[in-house]
Amino acid sequence: MAAFSFNKIVIFGVGLIGGSLARALRERAGLTGAKGEVVGVGRSIKSVERALELGVIDSAVFLDDDRALELALRDADIVLVAAPVAQTEPLLRRIAPFLDTRTIVTDAGSTKNDVVSAARAALGDRVAQFVPGHPIAGRESSGPDAAIPDLYVDRNVVLCPLPENPASVVERVADMWLATGARVHRMTAEQHDSVLASVSHLPHVLSFALVEMILQAPDAALKFSFAAGGFRDFTRIAASSPEMWRDICIANRAALLTEIDAYTNVLARLRQAIDTADGAALQAAFERSRTARTVWQQGGAIKAADDSAQ
Amino acid sequence: MAAFSFNKIVIFGVGLIGGSLARALRERAGLTGAKGEVVGVGRSIKSVERALELGVIDSAVFLDDDRALELALRDADIVLVAAPVAQTEPLLRRIAPFLDTRTIVTDAGSTKNDVVSAARAALGDRVAQFVPGHPIAGRESSGPDAAIPDLYVDRNVVLCPLPENPASVVERVADMWLATGARVHRMTAEQHDSVLASVSHLPHVLSFALVEMILQAPDAALKFSFAAGGFRDFTRIAASSPEMWRDICIANRAALLTEIDAYTNVLARLRQAIDTADGAALQAAFERSRTARTVWQQGGAIKAADDSAQ
Repeated sequence: MAAFSFNKIVIFGVGLIGGSLARALRERAGLTGAKGEVVGVGRSIKSVERALELGVIDSAVFLDDDRALELALRDADIVLVAAPVAQTEPLLRRIAPFLDTRTIVTDAGSTKNDVVSAARAALGDRVAQFVPGHPIAGRESSGPDAAIPDLYVDRNVVLCPLPENPASVVERVADMWLATGARVHRMTAEQHDSVLASVSHLPHVLSFALVEMILQAPDAALKFSFAAGGFRDFTRIAASSPEMWRDICIANRAALLTEIDAYTNVLARLRQAIDTADGAALQAAFERSRTARTVWQQGGAIKAADDSAQ
Repeated sequence: MAAFSFNKIVIFGVGLIGGSLARALRERAGLTGAKGEVVGVGRSIKSVERALELGVIDSAVFLDDDRALELALRDADIVLVAAPVAQTEPLLRRIAPFLDTRTIVTDAGSTKNDVVSAARAALGDRVAQFVPGHPIAGRESSGPDAAIPDLYVDRNVVLCPLPENPASVVERVADMWLATGARVHRMTAEQHDSVLASVSHLPHVLSFALVEMILQAPDAALKFSFAAGGFRDFTRIAASSPEMWRDICIANRAALLTEIDAYTNVLARLRQAIDTADGAALQAAFERSRTARTVWQQGGAIKAADDSAQ
């Protein structure tokens, strides 16, 4: 893990994601003589004060305080926007007037195409200072109390550099995440949104849909009373934040619709195999899934069904 | 937990389900002077010998040995068929010639309508001796080594009595399961199959389908490499036995098709809300799911969306 020096980092949103970055940089990253100050900015006085109390940040700023915000952003090395994706544009508009030309801005949003649009709209030409990012990490709990220094160790962080970003700017954001113990990958915002729609956003929608479907059955209570371990695992993500997933579904609408349609087609094919009692087709599909899931669990590389398209 | 006395129980299939019943009855259930012998019958010499070696059963019989099977079934109190549902009919046909009129037969199959048909076909008039059952319990591992005496503690066991079953016969099977620490419920085979299709069989198909869909993408390897915790939980059941789930899908075809169609409709409605960026509809649906999932996890009773239909 590389040492990462900085004088000041300003984090908008000091909950699990922003707070864990703060703690990782303060507790894990080596500082070579630099000041290493972490400023937390929040909409609610309560959450920034709690972060300060926990020692997650060095100083706390209330988002609506113009003067404090200006001082916080002056001479900042890096600004991280760690808020729900729907708040990215208003937050960047709030930051823009006080943004130093040498400050690098990045984010932690779960979707990237919409964040790029928001950044272009809010920052204009200064979008060259903005590097879209997504640390793929989470815990069941949230808020400053959930922040831990090791959240990003061995987790994937995706950066989606813009054509306008100077290489050194992207490099600096990558170095920050590497210092937390994360693995850093680069891809386009389109590729990111398609990958995440497939392995994260779609499963959430499918899980919510199962609970919704059972709720609509006249014998819902009976059905829930016989749900067991398979249901528990499958629906764990159906207890996720409704607001967050509403925003993600809308922010990543195009990619998610493509995935829903592809999934509906696969489900229709399995339905057909069940309807015609085609045991061979069912077993073949289930075997493929089991093998891929097992290899994935063991950390192995998975070959696509159609290798020629790789 | 009630004491449960028996002279001889014969279990066909001494893996996780049959072996755990054997261990529960031998190690947990109180015996009041009765002989309490457990005979294991298996298709493979290896698994019954392993069960004998582990002390799961008192004696082992090879399924193809006519003479040993006849002796094993003579004077048996209860016979449990704990084999994949597709084997129910051949096993009952194998048992029929040696079945004492006072012996009660039950099973542990995951589907019940097809088991009832199999029992009627194999046993004819003697179907009055057969009580269809389903202990809803499982572990990740299988085979006699996975058998544990506590597998059924606080788990649900469903009995689907036939009109032909004398009340005392059903009562005796219920008492056996109660002695393992299980909760015993009664419902019709149709009701059982509909409930299980909804909360177990459908989620398995949906989980297999997600992995299958990603495998078909040209960038499958990339997608799997960014899959995280939500994917892990959602697809845990996609590593289940392909043969077992092929058989369940076909055995419970009618109920499962009904559930797949209901699910497809719910998914289409969510798709529509995403397509039209209807945040309110998405949030409302996700809220309902989160509430129901949370209440379920906490062991509470869940009210159906349409209470008037209860």
